[in-house]
Amino acid sequence: MADIGAVQERKIVVAIDEGEESIYALTWAIKNVVSQNSSNDTIILLYAKPQRAVYSTLDGPGNLFSSDVIMSMEKYSKEVADCVIEKAKRVCKDLQNVKVETMIESGDAREVICDAVEKIGADLLVMGTHGYGVIKRAFLGSVSTHCAQNVKCPVLIVKKPKSS
Amino acid sequence: MADIGAVQERKIVVAIDEGEESIYALTWAIKNVVSQNSSNDTIILLYAKPQRAVYSTLDGPGNLFSSDVIMSMEKYSKEVADCVIEKAKRVCKDLQNVKVETMIESGDAREVICDAVEKIGADLLVMGTHGYGVIKRAFLGSVSTHCAQNVKCPVLIVKKPKSS
Repeated sequence: MADIGAVQERKIVVAIDEGEESIYALTWAIKNVVSQNSSNDTIILLYAKPQRAVYSTLDGPGNLFSSDVIMSMEKYSKEVADCVIEKAKRVCKDLQNVKVETMIESGDAREVICDAVEKIGADLLVMGTHGYGVIKRAFLGSVSTHCAQNVKCPVLIVKKPKSS
Repeated sequence: MADIGAVQERKIVVAIDEGEESIYALTWAIKNVVSQNSSNDTIILLYAKPQRAVYSTLDGPGNLFSSDVIMSMEKYSKEVADCVIEKAKRVCKDLQNVKVETMIESGDAREVICDAVEKIGADLLVMGTHGYGVIKRAFLGSVSTHCAQNVKCPVLIVKKPKSS
């Protein structure tokens, strides 16, 4: 059997987005995985902000969007990011002996999450899932499936029950 | 935020097979998720035994396999199951205050695991992953991906690092 060594310090990356699903996943992980008896756990709240290119593509060569509009969109995007991060931080506010950090990166969520997990050297990645149906999942792909297949560390996928 | 309630008793299903990957996943889960301070966790070691139909197909209408051969194959299959379960139980032997149960079911691993998780009412499913490459995964599918997409409870996928 492989010796995985004693767990000393754990970096737990929790991917959060605008959905309730990721807040549920964070809450579940705090209750079930995060150790509140020691000061060895660090939770990193990671938010992937849609990148500027999304707007640029819409804008196109015709420069339909004025710089005012682009600035408004960027302001909105930043406000959403701040709001999501604040909401997630509130979930963590009662944690004792656990460090909570935040990280906002721009780009496709799948790439942002995989890159961040590697860069941080995470011990665990926690993700919610939107629970798309079979058809939608087949066409859209799934962020959680992609990350589960591509990151090297353990991945905890938490599905929000329909009843709650 | 959804209230997920206090964790009282947890049923943790760990899918095990012949590979080192599932033993690594079990070990990781014990060190990182299973609570050894309370007697509220039950680990259910679940093994999916290839079903009889596999041999029947090989046998075909020509009855190439005598009943002796079929009996030998079934005996071998049972011995493999016992061996895998024993190996997993040894990993759990030092656990204090944690109940360990075993479950062997015949059938396709994906169906066996999804059915068992639902039947048991598991709070968490833990799985290893063989880490197939992109091509192999695309054609063969992946037990862990299938289960992550289909079970209702949280799923922890633990990939064995190449170095260990």
